[in-house]
Amino acid sequence: MNRTGLLIILSSPSGAGKSTLARRLMNWDASLRFSVSATTRQARPGEVHGRDYYFTDRAAFSDMVADGQMLEHAEVFGNLYGTPRAAVERAMAEGVDTLFDVDWQGGQQIRASALGPQVVSIFVLPPSLRELERRLRSRGQDDDAVIAERMRKSRDEISHWAEYDFVLINSDLDSTEAELRGIIRAERLRRERQRGLGSFVKSLMEEQV
Amino acid sequence: MNRTGLLIILSSPSGAGKSTLARRLMNWDASLRFSVSATTRQARPGEVHGRDYYFTDRAAFSDMVADGQMLEHAEVFGNLYGTPRAAVERAMAEGVDTLFDVDWQGGQQIRASALGPQVVSIFVLPPSLRELERRLRSRGQDDDAVIAERMRKSRDEISHWAEYDFVLINSDLDSTEAELRGIIRAERLRRERQRGLGSFVKSLMEEQV
Repeated sequence: MNRTGLLIILSSPSGAGKSTLARRLMNWDASLRFSVSATTRQARPGEVHGRDYYFTDRAAFSDMVADGQMLEHAEVFGNLYGTPRAAVERAMAEGVDTLFDVDWQGGQQIRASALGPQVVSIFVLPPSLRELERRLRSRGQDDDAVIAERMRKSRDEISHWAEYDFVLINSDLDSTEAELRGIIRAERLRRERQRGLGSFVKSLMEEQV
Repeated sequence: MNRTGLLIILSSPSGAGKSTLARRLMNWDASLRFSVSATTRQARPGEVHGRDYYFTDRAAFSDMVADGQMLEHAEVFGNLYGTPRAAVERAMAEGVDTLFDVDWQGGQQIRASALGPQVVSIFVLPPSLRELERRLRSRGQDDDAVIAERMRKSRDEISHWAEYDFVLINSDLDSTEAELRGIIRAERLRRERQRGLGSFVKSLMEEQV
């Protein structure tokens, strides 16, 4: 059955497993499309333009916003981040589901947009803040001040949990991945997302039996 | 996580596989509770009071309706059918999911009731009306006039497909059962159905890290 693509919003504090889960979902279903954000921040070593981000400057970014070409955008730690609208609308029309790794600000803006009815929003909670901090420290990338700042941002992110359709507690990656798969599979079966149903039922009713 | 029980409404024209699917779901998850309707019609051979139906008379049925004890009720082929409210509310409070085998009239009334937010409604379509008629005939129970009447009722039932949250086309019982399981599993994860989330997040935020 032909259908409209879902906009799957996955949010969580950093360290709760969101990136790992997003990667696993992309491996699970090759038809899922990952939404690549535009940003004004500098590319880090290893990051690829068009795969990890669309790297751009403030002037070009602001032009896109003024032009209505950003589905959502926000400033985080002094850098601009945003989701270009065109690719998302194209995926939706083609029946391709898009996965968004965005924070609560991005989630709010996408839900409030004209594309809102296609949104399935999922918030992933850590089992505890202690566990979250442990995961951040185990990366070994950041000093105490940066970790304290990330934990502050995590609490801010968690405070928005009640705006999401689904809330999962990620105590175990395999179980959480299975729950995410189940949600995506079920949401595809919602009546309003199956485009051909009306005409299928019409042809049923016109059958001569 | 503690949660509120779902009210799972399964509707379909007769012959589309609804009873088989309901039975399979009950076998799959022993925690599901099947909603037993009250009816004024005579018990058929083999039917057990309290398992298949609560058999009652018109006077007692009308008293329950007048008393607000019926969650929904309707007259079909001259007999009254209804869902006693108490058992459903108890199951919901205990976090037990209830499965309803009701027609569009029952579905509409349960959705419109105060329990509406806990409803997950699923409509099962046959792949074709010809197939539906074939299944009705293969039971060998009914003559042409009864089958014609059932087919008329089936068209009436199908005409209400667009009132349901999910619509499945039952071309294959195993696939349809898997879709139903997926829907139930996913709906259990909806934020508003998980009762302990608010206090879980509160305890997260109060952690000293």
